[in-house]
Amino acid sequence: MPLSEKVIARCLQISLFSEAPGEITRTFLCDAMHGCHRLLTAWMEELGMTVAVDPAGNLRGLYAGQGAVSRRLLIGSHLDTVPDAGMYDGVLGVVLGIALVESLAGQRFSYEIEIAGFSEEEGVRFGVPFIGSRALAGTLDGAVLETTDETAVSIRSAISHFGLDPSRLDKGLLHPNTFAYLEFHIEQGPVLQSANQPLGIVERIAGQSRLTVQFNGRAAHAGATPMHQRRDALAAAAEWIVAVERHAAAVPGLVATVGRIEAKPGASNVIPASVMATLDVRHPFDEPRVEAVEKLLATAREIARRRGLRLAIEPKLDQNAVAMHSDLIHAAERAMQQGGFTAPRLVSGAGHDAMIIAAKIPSVMIFLRSPGGISHHPDETVYPEDVSAALLAGRHFLDECERLS
Amino acid sequence: MPLSEKVIARCLQISLFSEAPGEITRTFLCDAMHGCHRLLTAWMEELGMTVAVDPAGNLRGLYAGQGAVSRRLLIGSHLDTVPDAGMYDGVLGVVLGIALVESLAGQRFSYEIEIAGFSEEEGVRFGVPFIGSRALAGTLDGAVLETTDETAVSIRSAISHFGLDPSRLDKGLLHPNTFAYLEFHIEQGPVLQSANQPLGIVERIAGQSRLTVQFNGRAAHAGATPMHQRRDALAAAAEWIVAVERHAAAVPGLVATVGRIEAKPGASNVIPASVMATLDVRHPFDEPRVEAVEKLLATAREIARRRGLRLAIEPKLDQNAVAMHSDLIHAAERAMQQGGFTAPRLVSGAGHDAMIIAAKIPSVMIFLRSPGGISHHPDETVYPEDVSAALLAGRHFLDECERLS
Repeated sequence: MPLSEKVIARCLQISLFSEAPGEITRTFLCDAMHGCHRLLTAWMEELGMTVAVDPAGNLRGLYAGQGAVSRRLLIGSHLDTVPDAGMYDGVLGVVLGIALVESLAGQRFSYEIEIAGFSEEEGVRFGVPFIGSRALAGTLDGAVLETTDETAVSIRSAISHFGLDPSRLDKGLLHPNTFAYLEFHIEQGPVLQSANQPLGIVERIAGQSRLTVQFNGRAAHAGATPMHQRRDALAAAAEWIVAVERHAAAVPGLVATVGRIEAKPGASNVIPASVMATLDVRHPFDEPRVEAVEKLLATAREIARRRGLRLAIEPKLDQNAVAMHSDLIHAAERAMQQGGFTAPRLVSGAGHDAMIIAAKIPSVMIFLRSPGGISHHPDETVYPEDVSAALLAGRHFLDECERLS
Repeated sequence: MPLSEKVIARCLQISLFSEAPGEITRTFLCDAMHGCHRLLTAWMEELGMTVAVDPAGNLRGLYAGQGAVSRRLLIGSHLDTVPDAGMYDGVLGVVLGIALVESLAGQRFSYEIEIAGFSEEEGVRFGVPFIGSRALAGTLDGAVLETTDETAVSIRSAISHFGLDPSRLDKGLLHPNTFAYLEFHIEQGPVLQSANQPLGIVERIAGQSRLTVQFNGRAAHAGATPMHQRRDALAAAAEWIVAVERHAAAVPGLVATVGRIEAKPGASNVIPASVMATLDVRHPFDEPRVEAVEKLLATAREIARRRGLRLAIEPKLDQNAVAMHSDLIHAAERAMQQGGFTAPRLVSGAGHDAMIIAAKIPSVMIFLRSPGGISHHPDETVYPEDVSAALLAGRHFLDECERLS
């Protein structure tokens, strides 16, 4: 079987470990993560790698260098998923890293290669993304460990329940000799497909702000309450959601999304008393993003005031945009040229573990084309020829790393 | 204790039977309905009434007439509630009926009095309102019994689970000798309070249309999908909800409400693929209501088409406006005069079991003032003096019924 097909077959094998029957759902250190680790460990050990799970639940495998080496290259991505996910988001980057080591057929470099499968990136279970890579980078605030999921289990308890020791998180810190981080990931958008290119090099990851907005009005009878005497929380939220979309469409590079909404009490014949809606705002640069958030919250306040509602805003995440390292971008471009590709430079609208690791060491990402731009959905896929291209480019990138000081 | 205070205390006692801790929620034949029936049965049996639960789950008590009677007056309302409801909507009409019998102190009429506590009016559990009164009126379509709730339990199964026999619904039909139906109910709106009147006589119940509208778009990554390449089902639904409110506000007498909304997959960083929203439209006359529904669905279709979404519409209820019977309106007016009140005539914007029973026999409703116009909410209340007024007017109404042919 060609290595590219093996990569795809392995992503399928991993996808069978799910906490929800009939779909792919694998949140932070759920029981299904054990099986996922077992399989990846076996594949890495076949290649002579040393494998362990660190105290934050990250799977870490080490491929030794030639002789006494003092440098280490980190290749990784995440192993958790959104609910009802596709097969490739995250997992592909880990499986590709392992396949890249396999493609070496035992060849060693002047540096070690570490493969990391991060325990958490999506932020689904605890509303806190990047738990795995933040632990590795040493930027996981201790207080965050007390955050609880819907069943009142804390991050700390989830780590213990998985059989790990949350008091030893410092044992999983990034090795000080690590000189670079490489992450392969599906694009999750339509740009590469539109450009008819298999691969792209990420030069920048957009910043993101996430918050929840709650409109509080008054429940009343849907039949007996005249329109002008209502304090309808859903009508207010709807007016705001329309404004969110309109504003984002008017600002180049800006995306803003209301992905979740809950209206209470939630009966067809009762005017909604309260509505909770999430807001997700992203832009390649920080100033337009911060401005957009301020503007959209001002709009929410104006709508609430005009309609006689109360407004409650809860910030969830405020992550600045992150530039990839220019030396690594150039190394990736040279690797592409040697592979015979001309990979465009992209801005990633999606957040990635690379934005956490980039705060510590030079980092770069290589995107694979997403057919239909589909991700976070069971229809998410990759072309086998794009996986071949990624393996070829990755192989040349490893050579380029020999020349990086 | 004055009878009016006893009525209020009894409504409080009934409110303690709830399927949701800390709030009043009692949907069709939930387990909490057993306790509610037990208490009402005890109160009716104390008055010498004969009590049974019919196969549709309606509680029915009979107070015999004097000698061999051939006529029957039905007094009733419903025992189910919306989620997180108040104490009076529905229950008050049943408890008042029982108190009216108690106020007779054993006096008998030339007719029997039947008290009915209908099992279902609000349409919460199955999205189908008036299950109880429709079964009594013989207008419950057999196919409706297969409708399922959110846990895939059908109406038929819910009846069996409650210990009743859904194949015997015809045993619960309205007794053929029933000559009139009287329903006491809180107004659920602000009109009587504005007019400073304790009671009102309903001359007309607004028609109502209920449906669900589903916008089907495409899930995609909230960060990686540019605004112009989205098929965001929630943005579409929000645009429509704004249009619903705007249209209803522009047509005199029209009310339109989106009370329930569900967006899937429901993650903050995923563009919603599908949104289900309910629509509830009411007007005192049928033509403006039907026109409004057509207009609002046309708007939904236009929004879906423009945004590249698919639309699915599911009608749930189409109930014409219903006039109360003029003989009974006059009888109620004479009863009010004898009680010393001048009760205004009202249009009910809320639907009531009386609109179902009125299709079979002459019917009338008496509204009690709703302080603050509040209903379908824990703050819903009544003034004790208005309950006294209702008991007095009801007592005179029973005398008036002696004179009705």
